[in-house]
Amino acid sequence: MRTIRLVVEYDGTAFSGWQVQAGLQARETVQGALQEALEKMTQVATRVRGASRTDAGVHARGQVAAFDTEKDSIGVLGFERGLTQLTPPQLVVRRAEEAPPGWDPKRSARGKRYRYSYWSDTTPTALERERAWWVRGRLDLERMQAAADHLLGTHDFEAFRSAGCSAQHAVRTMYDLKVEVGPWARVDLVVVGNAFCRNMVRIFAGTLAEVGLGRRAPEDVAEILASRDRTRGGVTAPGHGLCLEEVIYDDRLPPRPEDNRDLDPRPAAGEGE
Amino acid sequence: MRTIRLVVEYDGTAFSGWQVQAGLQARETVQGALQEALEKMTQVATRVRGASRTDAGVHARGQVAAFDTEKDSIGVLGFERGLTQLTPPQLVVRRAEEAPPGWDPKRSARGKRYRYSYWSDTTPTALERERAWWVRGRLDLERMQAAADHLLGTHDFEAFRSAGCSAQHAVRTMYDLKVEVGPWARVDLVVVGNAFCRNMVRIFAGTLAEVGLGRRAPEDVAEILASRDRTRGGVTAPGHGLCLEEVIYDDRLPPRPEDNRDLDPRPAAGEGE
Repeated sequence: MRTIRLVVEYDGTAFSGWQVQAGLQARETVQGALQEALEKMTQVATRVRGASRTDAGVHARGQVAAFDTEKDSIGVLGFERGLTQLTPPQLVVRRAEEAPPGWDPKRSARGKRYRYSYWSDTTPTALERERAWWVRGRLDLERMQAAADHLLGTHDFEAFRSAGCSAQHAVRTMYDLKVEVGPWARVDLVVVGNAFCRNMVRIFAGTLAEVGLGRRAPEDVAEILASRDRTRGGVTAPGHGLCLEEVIYDDRLPPRPEDNRDLDPRPAAGEGE
Repeated sequence: MRTIRLVVEYDGTAFSGWQVQAGLQARETVQGALQEALEKMTQVATRVRGASRTDAGVHARGQVAAFDTEKDSIGVLGFERGLTQLTPPQLVVRRAEEAPPGWDPKRSARGKRYRYSYWSDTTPTALERERAWWVRGRLDLERMQAAADHLLGTHDFEAFRSAGCSAQHAVRTMYDLKVEVGPWARVDLVVVGNAFCRNMVRIFAGTLAEVGLGRRAPEDVAEILASRDRTRGGVTAPGHGLCLEEVIYDDRLPPRPEDNRDLDPRPAAGEGE
């Protein structure tokens, strides 16, 4: 048996999220589209495992997936090109390579990098409308960065996960949170963490937007975090501003912040996004 | 009479170009969509003048347009918001302001800045597929910049305009041509010139792609330019990689290159893009 690892880029606008769902056609989810294409190539129904269950509308530059196959006649380049050709143009396999048999992209992941993009202007945007969340005002980046700094390190992020999150606990480690100036009126929040609860980056993004628009103080974020109460946090920012940029497997993670060493930074089972 | 100046952003994917065309519905062109919305707001059929007749698929961050109106009851903010609301989401009026009566965005323009985006990889892209031209290989940026440098200054760009160009001559001045590394596999060619013939930036982009992929030498561009023969140049790169970023009206143009001072840099009537 071979296991093939894929790096997948997709435009989330075209899909109802990563995961196959009852009542949806295969092509309406990223996983379904890949599985349907694989079945065409190998004549065998094949399950594709993903590193991250991205929600509807969420984009990916570097989702990682894997599948097992007995098919020896198709090389990795054949899978790379075939899967891109047999799926809609909103889905591209950027790389396919052999992996250790049974390799699992989720269990093996050491971290993930997400980018949340805002459109920071009083007028909306035509060209970024499906890639950035229009916050209907101008964001103050210094305030946002001050707020984001409170989230660095290992914490119990109970206040920043949605009610539907199935993970046993919300202790996670954030290695990096940077607020960056993008082109034109775009502002990006780049988050690197060991693992993420359901909607966590989107709740970070929604809360930081309120800080950036002057509706909350940066210090509120520390209070929200300590409260462990989801109702204290900001809105869940819409999915179309979020992009999964990289799933990290090697030693390229930034050094862990020195604080909060007493909490267990291992991701809990069943985490979201 | 008032004249209102607009800065307009649009996603060219949604339109058959700027200009109203017989046989097309109003909303299928940018000019038509604006005129239809204006008529709804003012109850008077109103012609909208554009600085640049962008082709089908070509995007704009900073197209400039103007119209005359007798309507005194709508302020500039009313036009800005109303026109954005009454047109498809692929069109946004970023700013509306009063201009001198009869002001013409094309005759008044001193220059324009365009960005042509390539996707420089062996695999295609999902997220940039409507914003960048996939050249099916990796571009050598140094070669491209060396080629682009030959286009700087005032020249007769006869070899770089399409057969359908209605301008009397092709003498134009290029103030700046920069090949830039974009995010991920994107490579951008940024061109600033006093005026442009039809398809000129796209023929620059197509020719420079051939240089970047090693199919032509950078010096070929000097020969093509001197030949004044369109058949010597490269392909016309597709419209979806092109974006009109800015129309320049003030003194912020870079100093004119010292060479080719003998040619008349004034734009000819009826120029394209």
